[in-house]
Amino acid sequence: MSVVKPGYVRPLDVRQGCIDMGHGAGGRAMAQLIGELFAPAFCNAYLDRGDDAAVLPALADGERLVMATDAHVISPLFFPGGDIGCLSVHGTINDLVVMGARPLYLAAAFVLEEGFPLADLKRIVESMAAASREAGVPVVTGDTKVVERGKGDGVFITTTGVGALAVGCELSGANARPGDVVLVSGTVGDHGMAIMAQRESLAFDAEIRSDTAALHGLAEAMRAAAPGLRVLRDPTRGGLATTLNEIAAQSGVGMELLESAIPVLPQVDAACELLGLDPLYVANEGKLVAVCPESEADGLLAAMRAHPLGASAARIGVITEDANRFVQVRTGFGGRRMVDWLSGEQLPRIC
Amino acid sequence: MSVVKPGYVRPLDVRQGCIDMGHGAGGRAMAQLIGELFAPAFCNAYLDRGDDAAVLPALADGERLVMATDAHVISPLFFPGGDIGCLSVHGTINDLVVMGARPLYLAAAFVLEEGFPLADLKRIVESMAAASREAGVPVVTGDTKVVERGKGDGVFITTTGVGALAVGCELSGANARPGDVVLVSGTVGDHGMAIMAQRESLAFDAEIRSDTAALHGLAEAMRAAAPGLRVLRDPTRGGLATTLNEIAAQSGVGMELLESAIPVLPQVDAACELLGLDPLYVANEGKLVAVCPESEADGLLAAMRAHPLGASAARIGVITEDANRFVQVRTGFGGRRMVDWLSGEQLPRIC
Repeated sequence: MSVVKPGYVRPLDVRQGCIDMGHGAGGRAMAQLIGELFAPAFCNAYLDRGDDAAVLPALADGERLVMATDAHVISPLFFPGGDIGCLSVHGTINDLVVMGARPLYLAAAFVLEEGFPLADLKRIVESMAAASREAGVPVVTGDTKVVERGKGDGVFITTTGVGALAVGCELSGANARPGDVVLVSGTVGDHGMAIMAQRESLAFDAEIRSDTAALHGLAEAMRAAAPGLRVLRDPTRGGLATTLNEIAAQSGVGMELLESAIPVLPQVDAACELLGLDPLYVANEGKLVAVCPESEADGLLAAMRAHPLGASAARIGVITEDANRFVQVRTGFGGRRMVDWLSGEQLPRIC
Repeated sequence: MSVVKPGYVRPLDVRQGCIDMGHGAGGRAMAQLIGELFAPAFCNAYLDRGDDAAVLPALADGERLVMATDAHVISPLFFPGGDIGCLSVHGTINDLVVMGARPLYLAAAFVLEEGFPLADLKRIVESMAAASREAGVPVVTGDTKVVERGKGDGVFITTTGVGALAVGCELSGANARPGDVVLVSGTVGDHGMAIMAQRESLAFDAEIRSDTAALHGLAEAMRAAAPGLRVLRDPTRGGLATTLNEIAAQSGVGMELLESAIPVLPQVDAACELLGLDPLYVANEGKLVAVCPESEADGLLAAMRAHPLGASAARIGVITEDANRFVQVRTGFGGRRMVDWLSGEQLPRIC
């Protein structure tokens, strides 16, 4: 992403203007879009150098590199609680965070559809920039491409994050052991149902807002409280159920959850009921699932609840020995049901 | 990109099957697509862990991190000399290479359109994997999303690369000084005209092939031959002309080129003539532009020509003192013309 200004041109008409094919052609129009819209929002010394790649400082001694990437194609682009811009920052930061890494830098690549309003793009970019500033993780390099009308859908944003992992920190979905405790940092299904409620024009007394948030602060508090923490995961696409199945499969264990212990907002529950969805399969963008030894579970829960993003954290189940790697839930009536992987497309384009 | 296999399912029908919305929903279908199509192609220890992010080794002492990202939306997806898969590997590696970095790891994010044939996806992924193996730069993490038919265009691929920069290596578009020499590593316009010829169904006696290639080997040879090397750039979108204007603007200098010295293949020249294009503005995907002190120019040129990817390298001009930062070219008739930034969209979706 070059931020060089190529001589004199009329300023971008951000109010009325739209993306045209020239904004992706690599010439004057693209340089202007970057110089007037992207660069001022993301403004940092790495990006401002205007080279083809960002040159960043060395990591601290022995720190390992962690890398994650996420394409964001969410529809609608704006929703209660956020937009594709801040979501694309939070999503990738959280992928680093669940490995125990300190998120450091982001790269952002935009695929814009011809005709997309510059005003919407500006709003999205400013939301990204605000999320990036708030998290302290700058966007250091980027790219923009433009596709013809009808070959894209407004804007897709791929963010890639790089972080540093301290010596000795070993979180992985493969670390859960029988007897361990499973916790979740708050109510599940908020993000997905915020999107669905907007798509279906559902109105509830209490608005459903996306929980999109960067979770590095919460994760840090959790690691401090539970040094033996085994697994951290953010239950995004596929929801809590799919994330738990992934952990069970990676670790070669089973799980037994208590249905009544899993926190769900009443309005999310009602919306799920109405649309025939199970909140356990609905995406979250600001929640963590944790697995820790029984001995550390109480301390971990207390630390989660003490953090603003973990106020409604709960202990929801235990890891079991199970060659079938089944995730089961005990229902209110004393029965059990299997919580399988998400099959098919429950909620398309949710992130 | 999780590579866990969620129990028993029918194998993917790679011959007849197509992408459906379920392949992006985060559940069983997505895990299967990743497990059967992506993971076997990219297969490496980092990716195979199946976590949300890749944990990579520490860099060597004092090595700085370099990061670049590129969204690839090229149309058509397959073209003489390559496809979107290998292009997406080469493009991002080259962005690291021009900073003087040793490319280390790639992340890949796919936006797939519903209905896209799995056979085409497999071909693309295998081409990416081959390019990645050949360059020695593994794809360590990834993401896949699916959008509805008519909201994408087959496949878009965003790759992000991370590299290591040795202490003391300082290449930048801002380093050119009056008196320096400008070189290019081979014929210009090959990639863009390969795409255009295919789009316009032009047939020439000599096929025009994309020059798409990873340039880290060539760049290494160049840095060894010219320790005083000031600028490396890959003249992609906007072509040689735009890249030279970017360097002139970043360094605050002018340039004087000799038109007859700029290598152009006869069939590229003919195709440009036919379509009313100027080869100086046509994209390259396997060429380097270099600026070095006059004293090192002969040695640098010899080193470039000795490398298979630099066989037709040429010295094409000099850096001048010019407050206007003009890039000018001396024509065959002794005249001069200005080589301005690319305006408008010469060649949409060329990379």
